[in-house]
Amino acid sequence: MSKLWQKDNVSVNEKIEKFTVGRDPEFDLLLAQFDVLGSLAHTQMLESIGLLESSELVEIQQELKNIYATIQAGEFEIEAGIEDVHSQVELLLTRKLGEAGKKIHSGRSRNDQVLVDLKLFTRSRLQEVAEATNRLFELLISLSDKFKDVLLPGYTHLQIAMPSSFGLWFGAYAEGLVDDMEMLQTAYKIANKNPLGSGAGYGSSFPLNRTMTTQLLGFQELHYNVVYAQMSRGKTELFATTAIAQVASTLSRLAMDICLYNSQNFGFIKLPDEMTTGSSIMPHKKNPDVAELLRGKTNRMKGLPNEIQLVMGNLPSGYHREMQILKEVLMPAFDEILNCLDMTYFMLSNIQVKDGILDDPKYDLLFSVERVNELVLQGVPFREAYKIIGHEINGGTYSPNRNLNHNHEGSIGNLCNDQITVMMKEVVGRFGFDKVETAISDLLK
Amino acid sequence: MSKLWQKDNVSVNEKIEKFTVGRDPEFDLLLAQFDVLGSLAHTQMLESIGLLESSELVEIQQELKNIYATIQAGEFEIEAGIEDVHSQVELLLTRKLGEAGKKIHSGRSRNDQVLVDLKLFTRSRLQEVAEATNRLFELLISLSDKFKDVLLPGYTHLQIAMPSSFGLWFGAYAEGLVDDMEMLQTAYKIANKNPLGSGAGYGSSFPLNRTMTTQLLGFQELHYNVVYAQMSRGKTELFATTAIAQVASTLSRLAMDICLYNSQNFGFIKLPDEMTTGSSIMPHKKNPDVAELLRGKTNRMKGLPNEIQLVMGNLPSGYHREMQILKEVLMPAFDEILNCLDMTYFMLSNIQVKDGILDDPKYDLLFSVERVNELVLQGVPFREAYKIIGHEINGGTYSPNRNLNHNHEGSIGNLCNDQITVMMKEVVGRFGFDKVETAISDLLK
Amino acid sequence: MSKLWQKDNVSVNEKIEKFTVGRDPEFDLLLAQFDVLGSLAHTQMLESIGLLESSELVEIQQELKNIYATIQAGEFEIEAGIEDVHSQVELLLTRKLGEAGKKIHSGRSRNDQVLVDLKLFTRSRLQEVAEATNRLFELLISLSDKFKDVLLPGYTHLQIAMPSSFGLWFGAYAEGLVDDMEMLQTAYKIANKNPLGSGAGYGSSFPLNRTMTTQLLGFQELHYNVVYAQMSRGKTELFATTAIAQVASTLSRLAMDICLYNSQNFGFIKLPDEMTTGSSIMPHKKNPDVAELLRGKTNRMKGLPNEIQLVMGNLPSGYHREMQILKEVLMPAFDEILNCLDMTYFMLSNIQVKDGILDDPKYDLLFSVERVNELVLQGVPFREAYKIIGHEINGGTYSPNRNLNHNHEGSIGNLCNDQITVMMKEVVGRFGFDKVETAISDLLK
Amino acid sequence: MSKLWQKDNVSVNEKIEKFTVGRDPEFDLLLAQFDVLGSLAHTQMLESIGLLESSELVEIQQELKNIYATIQAGEFEIEAGIEDVHSQVELLLTRKLGEAGKKIHSGRSRNDQVLVDLKLFTRSRLQEVAEATNRLFELLISLSDKFKDVLLPGYTHLQIAMPSSFGLWFGAYAEGLVDDMEMLQTAYKIANKNPLGSGAGYGSSFPLNRTMTTQLLGFQELHYNVVYAQMSRGKTELFATTAIAQVASTLSRLAMDICLYNSQNFGFIKLPDEMTTGSSIMPHKKNPDVAELLRGKTNRMKGLPNEIQLVMGNLPSGYHREMQILKEVLMPAFDEILNCLDMTYFMLSNIQVKDGILDDPKYDLLFSVERVNELVLQGVPFREAYKIIGHEINGGTYSPNRNLNHNHEGSIGNLCNDQITVMMKEVVGRFGFDKVETAISDLLK
Repeated sequence: MSKLWQKDNVSVNEKIEKFTVGRDPEFDLLLAQFDVLGSLAHTQMLESIGLLESSELVEIQQELKNIYATIQAGEFEIEAGIEDVHSQVELLLTRKLGEAGKKIHSGRSRNDQVLVDLKLFTRSRLQEVAEATNRLFELLISLSDKFKDVLLPGYTHLQIAMPSSFGLWFGAYAEGLVDDMEMLQTAYKIANKNPLGSGAGYGSSFPLNRTMTTQLLGFQELHYNVVYAQMSRGKTELFATTAIAQVASTLSRLAMDICLYNSQNFGFIKLPDEMTTGSSIMPHKKNPDVAELLRGKTNRMKGLPNEIQLVMGNLPSGYHREMQILKEVLMPAFDEILNCLDMTYFMLSNIQVKDGILDDPKYDLLFSVERVNELVLQGVPFREAYKIIGHEINGGTYSPNRNLNHNHEGSIGNLCNDQITVMMKEVVGRFGFDKVETAISDLLK
Repeated sequence: MSKLWQKDNVSVNEKIEKFTVGRDPEFDLLLAQFDVLGSLAHTQMLESIGLLESSELVEIQQELKNIYATIQAGEFEIEAGIEDVHSQVELLLTRKLGEAGKKIHSGRSRNDQVLVDLKLFTRSRLQEVAEATNRLFELLISLSDKFKDVLLPGYTHLQIAMPSSFGLWFGAYAEGLVDDMEMLQTAYKIANKNPLGSGAGYGSSFPLNRTMTTQLLGFQELHYNVVYAQMSRGKTELFATTAIAQVASTLSRLAMDICLYNSQNFGFIKLPDEMTTGSSIMPHKKNPDVAELLRGKTNRMKGLPNEIQLVMGNLPSGYHREMQILKEVLMPAFDEILNCLDMTYFMLSNIQVKDGILDDPKYDLLFSVERVNELVLQGVPFREAYKIIGHEINGGTYSPNRNLNHNHEGSIGNLCNDQITVMMKEVVGRFGFDKVETAISDLLK
Repeated sequence: MSKLWQKDNVSVNEKIEKFTVGRDPEFDLLLAQFDVLGSLAHTQMLESIGLLESSELVEIQQELKNIYATIQAGEFEIEAGIEDVHSQVELLLTRKLGEAGKKIHSGRSRNDQVLVDLKLFTRSRLQEVAEATNRLFELLISLSDKFKDVLLPGYTHLQIAMPSSFGLWFGAYAEGLVDDMEMLQTAYKIANKNPLGSGAGYGSSFPLNRTMTTQLLGFQELHYNVVYAQMSRGKTELFATTAIAQVASTLSRLAMDICLYNSQNFGFIKLPDEMTTGSSIMPHKKNPDVAELLRGKTNRMKGLPNEIQLVMGNLPSGYHREMQILKEVLMPAFDEILNCLDMTYFMLSNIQVKDGILDDPKYDLLFSVERVNELVLQGVPFREAYKIIGHEINGGTYSPNRNLNHNHEGSIGNLCNDQITVMMKEVVGRFGFDKVETAISDLLK
Repeated sequence: MSKLWQKDNVSVNEKIEKFTVGRDPEFDLLLAQFDVLGSLAHTQMLESIGLLESSELVEIQQELKNIYATIQAGEFEIEAGIEDVHSQVELLLTRKLGEAGKKIHSGRSRNDQVLVDLKLFTRSRLQEVAEATNRLFELLISLSDKFKDVLLPGYTHLQIAMPSSFGLWFGAYAEGLVDDMEMLQTAYKIANKNPLGSGAGYGSSFPLNRTMTTQLLGFQELHYNVVYAQMSRGKTELFATTAIAQVASTLSRLAMDICLYNSQNFGFIKLPDEMTTGSSIMPHKKNPDVAELLRGKTNRMKGLPNEIQLVMGNLPSGYHREMQILKEVLMPAFDEILNCLDMTYFMLSNIQVKDGILDDPKYDLLFSVERVNELVLQGVPFREAYKIIGHEINGGTYSPNRNLNHNHEGSIGNLCNDQITVMMKEVVGRFGFDKVETAISDLLK
């Protein structure tokens, strides 16, 4: 089967073929299930506006569902010489159904199909990321609760500052994920809008019912304006990678803390042996390779939005072929962030925290503010109290008051993990995963 | 008045002074009004927990409101030798009220104060950006309505593709701003959380009531965990610049279209004379400098989030001094995006669109899809129709059918600008500006 | 064979294995030949300082050369369960030579070996990039010569400005590559310094002769300081990707010009049919997909240095495991830029330029400066002449003087391609490829 | 005096004025001296081709030198209403010399002038950066020599690894600057090419002698091709900021080490009191603010090249107005990097290093490799020795051998600072500053 656009008398140079196709076949396989979903909805709509016979629809739907099952079973493949996933699906249909199979293309262009596929793919994978993020959140909250009484030096400027705790430290990263979840939701929203029917970006003279496909595919809204629907290419990827980069930023900072705390100069935590490696020349080493790789992989992911900006920059409106290579930026990023979330979960599940860290006299100064506040609560003006303790420290007469009495919201003695959990649940609830899942499941019935 | 932290016997080198202070005095002036708001709320709370006398509170509140009025009148300044805005406010208070003035610092650290100031500042300026974005949205919708019947070539691959219209083109950028508004809202949400009471990032032994200050300052939520409150430094800036960069991306693409459409090789629009410049050597030139500068300024803004990532990368948890220089990234960005929004508004208000563009025969091929679809609706299978018209074109017998009949949602004949406007209103409504404005106005009563 | 660092009683979790290994096996294959070169030099040196017997050296050298031949023949592979290329080479040696095979590791650590491999790999691939860049340069110069008389509108601000020519246009990109070649050379220089002997970054108590291995491997210099040798990890990759990004920038801008000039609104060039594609719905389209993909791929490559900065940012001195993932940034970038250089070469070899473009009256104004200068050379002050022609244009009495008489260096009539070629040859000569090739060939004798 | 390009009947909106002018007046002042140098050379050349009378030349040269003196004295300013530095210089000339003053514009366009100014400015400031880098290099070498016997733990993976020394540590950063200097030189080379005569990017019909101005201005080469000369706009800035970012990367890593080593958990160095600050609430703090700000400022500078890529991305060839805003990226970057180099110099001049760090038993394991190598040199195979010492460590019987005997090139006992200094001198020598200085001094005679 030759390419749709190939004129008869022009042979396509193999080198160009390789250059233009790039990694599309690999990515097209990942889009296959969503391509079928799009066709299931599109054909129902075509029948409703009289562009498909009811009998054709029944056959096509059945066959599309068969193909979907094949995909789910991991048995779908794009045959040699077939240009893309859309052509492969059409080929399978026409083999079974003859001419009727070709009709699924009516009122659509490939730009349109790819865009729908990408929206559905992104929506689905963002849900996975949100769920994995939520699982990590729950673990962090439980660790925060579990170790709420284990104290840790708090640093500012990498200088010992005030007492902190593992409860605060784990809880901080948990709460950070709540804000990251908002960013994931923003990305989800733009992925949850329907571009189907926008054609090559200028719509169509077919009397399409785009509201109908919006409902069938569980989209929350239409991308109404067809020119904008096309413009959402690149932008959807940008929003998604921005959200991924945000989760990555949080993991990266956590990984940096872990690498530092695992150093002999801190010695606050211990990683399980299977997460450390030795050295080929130093027999004493237990290197936190997993944490370092987490740090590196997540740091690298922070650059994803910039990659998209560089590709999309100063492209006038309308489709341009290089938008295809954004798949290379976007699609592997989901696996990468999911692996990193998973590995962080695994690492934290097995982390050991050290007790009694603050017993080391080098941390005595952590309690200087406590001493200052003690004086203040006895009536000494703050500036005065500050000077008194300063003189004690310089004169060597300072001794720490280790009775911590931090009770306000969010402090060592009152972590507010329940309130933080409520915030997270509220954000997660707003995604509306149920509605989407119901629509998809109806489509496949 | 010497610096708080300055030990008596150490003279501070002037060079270091300049290096460390940087542009802070300039930015501190912008934070002044928010610093006073924070102190108004903090002192009310201090009184409620018994750390201020009621009589002291009355005096302090009055004086803070006086300072606020001075700031609003543009008469506030940071005196020579005073370290920062917080010290200046405290100095003004103590001049009037003596020792009582110093108490506003109780239960707070400077990290805490700066963070509150930055949250309030960012929240306020994001509101301005959202409002300016909304104004531009409304203009774009009205232009889309006004020019809905003026046709334009639609391009893909920079090749003429299908008929488009100024209605679609203006409307596309309008709808784009709806999604950008979601990003602004995500940034707004993190700016709308209360860090007050987090101290240097490890809380305090004072029995602070953080819920109370949250309500007084109109924040939607607390940053509960005090370590996370401090971690939101850098992250708040990142979210805000990400949202700014997103609006900038939309403006940048619009500016590129304008520069292209203004070229003699397109000639689709005309910019007003005052927005173009001539050449020192070519007497015929009318260069679209404003559009080009818009394009350049907005493109540059896309790099803001990356600047923040580079500064924050691999910093362990806890405050680090360089977080201060994020002000240099964040604070001017608001003026820049507001200027760009403003200038875009001005440019579009005066843009002239050309009529009859498609009468030029070079655009005849735009209608080829119409001809294909015409055959399809007559019963010819799509692939067949595609080939027939392809042969007409190659054989020189093709003639365009200029009767456009695009009526589905979001197409040339059915722009759905009303529905798009509904979407925008829904997003804007969710910000909750009213609640914030009420709280601030109560605080200043 | 278990891992070097694996303690007996710890089983390594498979998931962690996959996470930590990443794409290393794939990349290790690309490093294999350079690993053998490093060992050939290292063992000669070991023998010279008495850490290998002469007889052992002979055997080891022979066997290493056999392995090198296997690699060149594409038959080398890393066996299942073997950790990396270094272990695989050692395994092959010990299978043949017993204990002697293990001695190649003496006085080296894996960090050391990887770093040497990466230097040699980068040096070799940068040479390929430099050579491909030079080939493209020569093509551009020949196109510039060939089409020196074919005029083209010159644009500023995307507005028609003054006459240009294909001679100038092709020649400009050629000359651009001269400066890019300087950047490639800077990257080459840092890759051409010897880290061997730096161990894990802190040297060794073995009496290594690092000057000797420097000469044997054809390096131009040592990285003397062993701590800096290790710090050159990340930096070598940064320099290399910076140079790649620079070549990419030039290709990207050329690709943008091509996409624009290929638009019907310009119509200055024609691409061969096999480099364009059609549309699935628009039978008239000939889209410049190859040029667009070139543009996109090269634009994306501009982000490579930033990716490295994000990974390396704020890592203290000393090796960190995530430096390994820089291989994922660096190593595929060479293939990508070489493909892009190749495809650009192919595209330009087949490009057709249009004659008589300036005959279209819309380009008449291009000659306005000529008219101004004509008056100036007749004695009219420039400002006066400028106004006169301005009035002619506005009054409709202007008529172009098409007699171009540009003869100064680098102008339409005097392209100076010979001088530009001399510059390029001078830069290329400075790389010193010969010296390197001689050293490697001696090592393999 | 109205603007050159301003048509009589069009009033320029003030807002647009502000938007388009931006920070140009501020930057134009910095370009003034270079603008005069360009005019000194250009007018000599104009006279040589008969476009200026000898007598006019004498007057103009004298007056330009007067203006140059005014600039050097800090008394030059751009008067209200004057568009730019070029117009101001012309105005001063015409006030004194009448019509003759206007002739300095003959055969040039403003694009041309700005580009020459930017090249000369960049060349000059890169020389300053190179010289400051060299001074820092010399300090680092002297510190390395001075503290060559003070041991330091060497880390890999932030784990204690092997013995290092302050000699190695300071020396490593010194050697790093040698490679950075190569990058500075590459940037210098593209800044040291002459664009004068390229006009608006398409040359001129005047019989300019560009070789003559190249020599007069001390440029090493011409940008021959006039289209490329214009394309070097943006690229010159990119090269310069890339080099600045490279120096910044080295300083940033050094600053991170300093912040870490200054932490109580390391305690390897002590910064002078005037370079640290206290806390408003913690009386014991001595925060390394200067080092942190250095780290932050230099990290931020790493983003400069990306900013330029974002502005220039996908601009077709030919001048575009936003190239002007690259001045905002480039010009302040020089001050910033020079400040950072200066402050680093100052900080290191006063740094105190701690003696006897390795006496702390927690660092005993640093010597494990020494013990392994000891056994190896006694004939035990490396793998065997590695296992033996591993067992000693696990069994608690390990005791360190503190006799370090590292003598190979670049190791603790043999820093090779002399060889590194030779390398640096060689690179610095290649800049050719003398030739440039001689030319400029001749021009001003």
